[in-house]
Amino acid sequence: MQRTRVAVVGLGNVGRGAAEALAASPDFELAGVVRRRAEPGERVAGPNWEAPAVTRIDELDEVHAALMCGPTRELEPMEHTLLRSGISVVDTFDMHGEPLWNHKQSLAASALEGHSSAVIAAGWDPGADSVIRALLEIIAPTGITYTNFGPGMSMGHSVAVRAIPGVADAVSITLPAGYGRHRRAVYVELDGSRPFADVKSDIRRDPYFVRDETDVFEVDCVSQAADPGHGVVIDRKGASGRTGNQLLRWEMRITNPSVTGQIMVGALRAGLKKAPGAYTLIELAVADMLPEALEDLVKRIV
Amino acid sequence: MQRTRVAVVGLGNVGRGAAEALAASPDFELAGVVRRRAEPGERVAGPNWEAPAVTRIDELDEVHAALMCGPTRELEPMEHTLLRSGISVVDTFDMHGEPLWNHKQSLAASALEGHSSAVIAAGWDPGADSVIRALLEIIAPTGITYTNFGPGMSMGHSVAVRAIPGVADAVSITLPAGYGRHRRAVYVELDGSRPFADVKSDIRRDPYFVRDETDVFEVDCVSQAADPGHGVVIDRKGASGRTGNQLLRWEMRITNPSVTGQIMVGALRAGLKKAPGAYTLIELAVADMLPEALEDLVKRIV
Repeated sequence: MQRTRVAVVGLGNVGRGAAEALAASPDFELAGVVRRRAEPGERVAGPNWEAPAVTRIDELDEVHAALMCGPTRELEPMEHTLLRSGISVVDTFDMHGEPLWNHKQSLAASALEGHSSAVIAAGWDPGADSVIRALLEIIAPTGITYTNFGPGMSMGHSVAVRAIPGVADAVSITLPAGYGRHRRAVYVELDGSRPFADVKSDIRRDPYFVRDETDVFEVDCVSQAADPGHGVVIDRKGASGRTGNQLLRWEMRITNPSVTGQIMVGALRAGLKKAPGAYTLIELAVADMLPEALEDLVKRIV
Repeated sequence: MQRTRVAVVGLGNVGRGAAEALAASPDFELAGVVRRRAEPGERVAGPNWEAPAVTRIDELDEVHAALMCGPTRELEPMEHTLLRSGISVVDTFDMHGEPLWNHKQSLAASALEGHSSAVIAAGWDPGADSVIRALLEIIAPTGITYTNFGPGMSMGHSVAVRAIPGVADAVSITLPAGYGRHRRAVYVELDGSRPFADVKSDIRRDPYFVRDETDVFEVDCVSQAADPGHGVVIDRKGASGRTGNQLLRWEMRITNPSVTGQIMVGALRAGLKKAPGAYTLIELAVADMLPEALEDLVKRIV
């Protein structure tokens, strides 16, 4: 099989997970890593991969697709450029609702121009969990779905705390509080410029935290609380036809960046099979996200 | 919205579940029920539906699709006839592997001829569980998936026991024995023509039971053990990239015929959107199985 050459854009935790997943796949090849700073001739490596690091994707040979592994709002201009030049992309756009729909519409235009495809919001949530939420409603159309995250580190919340004056470093843990509600546990390392009580009060008033019960702890070393593990439980109790008490549950205990990178690889596989456009995971068939031939897959897994 | 008129073929438990699900849907209308025996002008009803019962589908007006709610091997000739005449179908073909692939290939030919579509194996397993098994491998491509059924009544196994001489009635319950293995508990009502020990020994030697540990109980009234509830737990422990210990689980506690009928309705919705052909659920996008407009769905559920 001719492997499709793919670039990883961004080399944080998710970028490393994506590189690892690409290298472990039978149908893709890691063409290289695009990062803000790279020395000429620099190479980077992980447990099962080794690749050139460059600052511009056109420094890499024959790239057919790119996994966008960074904050989508920062990477969005580059996504448009890539799509217009015929390079398909996958991202993990992490907002729901209106912004997600607008992002889809906007990328679709560039994808049509460049005859390429974008798969957006293709992490674990939004992403795999979105497919689950759809499936739950297919099985039991009336009822309520509860998505319960954690325990696990929230990157967005951690970054928000680090921006507060007086904070040297911070980690925010999401704790499930039952039926879709969450608590936050924030571990902060102070820089000594402000008292803990002021920092704590600022955190609790931050838009990221204001709606949730939030405990703040001062610690000597935040890195001791960091752990890439995360999880989710999605529960639905609903009715099929008029028959109630259908009890459905999805549960994951996962290494966040590894699973995110792996789902992006599956999303890319399906995206490359679609007509030019921008897609969320619920618009793609799961069979298209796997490398096996359809006949083998139907015989083995259905 | 113009509702699509759909016939239910077969009025056993699944047929009643399918009628109930169609009647509860915003986009379909139950055109009628096709059954082996029906009096002229007969009408049948359920909690939220009421429809004519006929022996031949062409006695119903304007039928665009049919849900095949009976043993697929019996209904297969009729599926071909319907597909060739332009009526799309959904079935719950319940064999895996080679027979499933052959069934797909065979129906696809008729569907192409009649510009119609077939969605096959569209119950909960194969069906919804198949989508889950695919998703589990997308998230963690290496590892092992265990599908654990029950506790719940197995129709196939119950029918097999009823065919054994000396048995007046029987129910076979599937019990999960862990990591994909199952035990069977068979409740039999004897007709008095043979001793219990002989019947028990025949059951245990039957191809349906020979591989599983099977307990057989003599009871006065089998119907007391009957319950339409069923369940499944699908577990996967696998690796994303090279990172192990990804723990994934899907669990359902369901009313078997209601959920089966409901999934068939979702499958039909997606089948009607596809090019002529025959499809399993893993080849369809979950978004296409729901009645909502894509924009609303993306904003609400992704």
